[in-house]
Amino acid sequence: MIQDLPFFLATLHDAYAGGLRPAEVMRECRRRIEAAGDPGIFLHLPQEADLVAMAEALGPFDPQAMPLYGLPFAVKDNIDVAGWPTTAGCPAFAYTPDADAFVIAQLRAAGAIPVGKASLDQFATGLNGTRTTGPAPLNAINAELVPGGSSGGSGVAVGRGLVSFSLGTDTAGSGRVPAAMNGIVGLKPTLGAFSASGVVPACRSCETVSVFALSVDDAHAVFRAATAYDPADGYARPVAAPLPGPVTPLAIGVPDAASREFFGDAAQEANFAATLDWLKAQGHRIAELDFAPLYEIAVMLYDGPWVAERHAVIQDLMERRPDAVLPVIREIVGKAGRFSATDTFRAQYRFRDLKRQAEALMAGLDMLCVPTVPALCSLADIAAEPVAANSRLGTYTNFVNLLDMAALAVPVMPRADGHPGNVTLIAGAGEDAVLASLGRVMQADLAGAPGAPGWPLPALAPAATAAAADEIIVAAVGAHMSGLPLNHELTSRGGRFLEAARTAPDYRFYALAGGPPKRPGLVRCGENEQGHSIAVELWALPASQMGDFMKGIPAPLTIGTLTISDGRGVLGFLCESAATATATEISHLGGWRAFLETLTAKAAS
Amino acid sequence: MIQDLPFFLATLHDAYAGGLRPAEVMRECRRRIEAAGDPGIFLHLPQEADLVAMAEALGPFDPQAMPLYGLPFAVKDNIDVAGWPTTAGCPAFAYTPDADAFVIAQLRAAGAIPVGKASLDQFATGLNGTRTTGPAPLNAINAELVPGGSSGGSGVAVGRGLVSFSLGTDTAGSGRVPAAMNGIVGLKPTLGAFSASGVVPACRSCETVSVFALSVDDAHAVFRAATAYDPADGYARPVAAPLPGPVTPLAIGVPDAASREFFGDAAQEANFAATLDWLKAQGHRIAELDFAPLYEIAVMLYDGPWVAERHAVIQDLMERRPDAVLPVIREIVGKAGRFSATDTFRAQYRFRDLKRQAEALMAGLDMLCVPTVPALCSLADIAAEPVAANSRLGTYTNFVNLLDMAALAVPVMPRADGHPGNVTLIAGAGEDAVLASLGRVMQADLAGAPGAPGWPLPALAPAATAAAADEIIVAAVGAHMSGLPLNHELTSRGGRFLEAARTAPDYRFYALAGGPPKRPGLVRCGENEQGHSIAVELWALPASQMGDFMKGIPAPLTIGTLTISDGRGVLGFLCESAATATATEISHLGGWRAFLETLTAKAAS
Repeated sequence: MIQDLPFFLATLHDAYAGGLRPAEVMRECRRRIEAAGDPGIFLHLPQEADLVAMAEALGPFDPQAMPLYGLPFAVKDNIDVAGWPTTAGCPAFAYTPDADAFVIAQLRAAGAIPVGKASLDQFATGLNGTRTTGPAPLNAINAELVPGGSSGGSGVAVGRGLVSFSLGTDTAGSGRVPAAMNGIVGLKPTLGAFSASGVVPACRSCETVSVFALSVDDAHAVFRAATAYDPADGYARPVAAPLPGPVTPLAIGVPDAASREFFGDAAQEANFAATLDWLKAQGHRIAELDFAPLYEIAVMLYDGPWVAERHAVIQDLMERRPDAVLPVIREIVGKAGRFSATDTFRAQYRFRDLKRQAEALMAGLDMLCVPTVPALCSLADIAAEPVAANSRLGTYTNFVNLLDMAALAVPVMPRADGHPGNVTLIAGAGEDAVLASLGRVMQADLAGAPGAPGWPLPALAPAATAAAADEIIVAAVGAHMSGLPLNHELTSRGGRFLEAARTAPDYRFYALAGGPPKRPGLVRCGENEQGHSIAVELWALPASQMGDFMKGIPAPLTIGTLTISDGRGVLGFLCESAATATATEISHLGGWRAFLETLTAKAAS
Repeated sequence: MIQDLPFFLATLHDAYAGGLRPAEVMRECRRRIEAAGDPGIFLHLPQEADLVAMAEALGPFDPQAMPLYGLPFAVKDNIDVAGWPTTAGCPAFAYTPDADAFVIAQLRAAGAIPVGKASLDQFATGLNGTRTTGPAPLNAINAELVPGGSSGGSGVAVGRGLVSFSLGTDTAGSGRVPAAMNGIVGLKPTLGAFSASGVVPACRSCETVSVFALSVDDAHAVFRAATAYDPADGYARPVAAPLPGPVTPLAIGVPDAASREFFGDAAQEANFAATLDWLKAQGHRIAELDFAPLYEIAVMLYDGPWVAERHAVIQDLMERRPDAVLPVIREIVGKAGRFSATDTFRAQYRFRDLKRQAEALMAGLDMLCVPTVPALCSLADIAAEPVAANSRLGTYTNFVNLLDMAALAVPVMPRADGHPGNVTLIAGAGEDAVLASLGRVMQADLAGAPGAPGWPLPALAPAATAAAADEIIVAAVGAHMSGLPLNHELTSRGGRFLEAARTAPDYRFYALAGGPPKRPGLVRCGENEQGHSIAVELWALPASQMGDFMKGIPAPLTIGTLTISDGRGVLGFLCESAATATATEISHLGGWRAFLETLTAKAAS
């Protein structure tokens, strides 16, 4: 029954592989949108016939060419879709673009189908989702709570299972707060990964288009499809988008007791503590940090001159038709007039100094983990304190873009009151895949069914062991393998373990003279020699680190192409034949660990 | 006679090696300063006894530990030297720091000795050097000309041979214009290479401390000693400081006829054309570019909100004691009040877009070459048009720091009127050594004795062939050598040719089966085999590119450590022995080019 079909990428692609047509999914998507009965979610919906036409234009199911084939998605209404009005939540601002935003074109090329424009806090200014001219979208989990914003409609559309994913935008947390409020995933990419061409800016120097999805895997698949360098966007930059990999033990910074803030939400406090317990139990190291420098940066974003970036977008409109702008937005953006150019540069200097403090604070850590929101926020809270309650939502999100970090809001175990828990993992620019590697396991282990529809998460596929485009596979055969003395030469350069493997049965294997450390010699056999299959470990090393890594590899070791038992050729350690004359052949042991065991046995006997 | 001793690094170090003591050089330095009879050069000179004490504290001559051992240098008076007043050219602003600026400490540790604080355009605001409260320094070549600024005293001190080098600062061209005006070298490092800690800022987001010297080699030696990452400076970043290398053919962008501007100085126009002729004759490719996007960026620096950076430094003083600030500076910096925070962000956005245009313009080029100044500038010119004549000086310098590029002002052949010619080479951030590689040869081939003293340039040492710390040497043995089909795999990744060399006589050499392209197989001999010395080329490849380079190297080729005839081990192409079974041994030919010649001979016969 298509009515019961979850909109996860994996379930939809299974169905497409089984013969379902995308047009049927588009009709079902429209049925769900109507059944939801919430006029606050979408600001524009095309004719159903248009959706069906887009679906039929896709051609046959081809997930290689179109990794997002047939996935319906919602678009925050500050991102252009050709022929649909863009309002940024302000009818007076509306225009109808001729062309798709760059990121929409990317997603269409990957097979995804836009189904509507989603509500937002006007001009993406807000974190609660109710700063709208029409009805605000209802929270997907609990209608007494705010939907979260500014990407409110985008968060709710995913949270209610109306679409497979949605696009938001994120300056202060607009791509993460709605994830926490609606029990879903919010992926805030590295700045510059997604093009901003065709996006109404809020704070152009430190914002990005973002992704909401039901699972980390789905969000990351969208990230991979959307990431492409756009030279027409002055803030774009080339960002790598590798697959997530296996999780290795991490060092994770968290706010210490004194800088942990929940504004009285004890359920949130307990939920965060439980998440940290899980991280510890998984073998990760938790480092408690004084978050004060990060909070000081956070405050700068709204209280400092950066608000003038928002002013730059709507100055004309505010002067021409002040009534067209919501009073709360007018109040916030109007503060821009307080700041001079001199103030702006002073704030940028101060920010640079704080950034250094933040760097020192985070030195040696792989990532941060924070509650996505410090406390749930109700409609009543916002009505009582429209600005203060909104500001509280950004406690753990505001500093991230200014610090040029990537973030991933991940559902965790439910809170004591049943609302889904949610934490945000934060790492340096370009580390999006590292966040996904942990986040996908975290969601699978801890969280219930995402959002409102109750669809169980698809079984987690094994982490990809392929190297990413900017990585290189290195086959370790000796002391560079996990736990052995030279393994740090890989891990300290960002190497990550992919898999244990064996070579094709075409090699001879030696323990070279000299050491410690003892070094292995792997040599391809001549035509008439008896070959052996030797145990190796495949590691992915950032390609940029390979040169530095090789500086530490002495003769007679070389790096060449090894043939693996499955026929792949990968770079790995080989040895000049001449050195085997003084070496001990250990081919019959089948690997370096087996050889080390013979040494231990010898020492013990 | 010490009175005749040039203050080049090489000549001073030869003299120190021969027994001269640094204290004698300090006394001679003082004698020269007094003999110069120009009270406008220095704003502060310590007691001679203090200089002698610093010199005596250096200990014995040790150029390895102290590469700038015993070199006297002048310090622009916006850079702190412990115990000496810092005025930034404004007596009312003066303070006496307890500590050296970070960069001064670096230079002292390298053995250099500061001898005085040099005059500047007040608050480093200007390019002509006469915006001073006391007498301006006299141009070293021609007293009717301005000294150039803002680092006027620093430029003249070097131009008159009073010191070995000096420090300036450079936002709009203050580290380059005085080089052109005084016939010397001006090195404007990559932003962030030199720490700004302890420097009175002018335009903190886009300025740097800079170096004046008599030769490119001396300036680059100072660059190497001063470059160190300072985490306390929010704008610092790690920058590589390798040695200059040999010059390979370059693609050099220059302003096209329509965008070349000399303001009627025909001698300057002819001089620039002659320099380009020399570059072409050296085998470099000249690309004529429309410089319009660069000029638009240049205009932003003074006419846009960046002037507020200067205001941020002296706002208090201007409010408290406006009379303490020179009227021309008050007028310029006062413009900051015109710009709001909103204007500032809008200008930053516009700049980003222009930067993209500039990137497109410069794509595929190795560097730019421009006249350092479009025209010489006299004291009369500045008296007539204090702001306009000053602005003209920055035509070819203003855009460089905003675009985050490195620059080197280099003396070339004299102009028709006898004044030394000077051009500026400009390349991307981190390319300082690439500029020096060309600049040192350019100066040696084209320029007369630098500055005023008439000291002939020391003979140019052969370019270093060592790889820099962030490079890796790769020995090419076959199709990767210069001019052969796979050479682009090195050059397109920033590889640079170091030297032709030969392996130790320990190898056998093969032409492998298969191709094209034909591939070589270099294999180390076994103990009882007859070895050969094989011709190789050593290339320096950025270490960050090694991984990408290796992805293109198929089996049976490997990268291992080759032994060169001088005993060095370098990474290079080796071959798995198993592949030699089907290969043709060509060891007797001694190298790949000799083998290719046999193929050509065969084809011809």
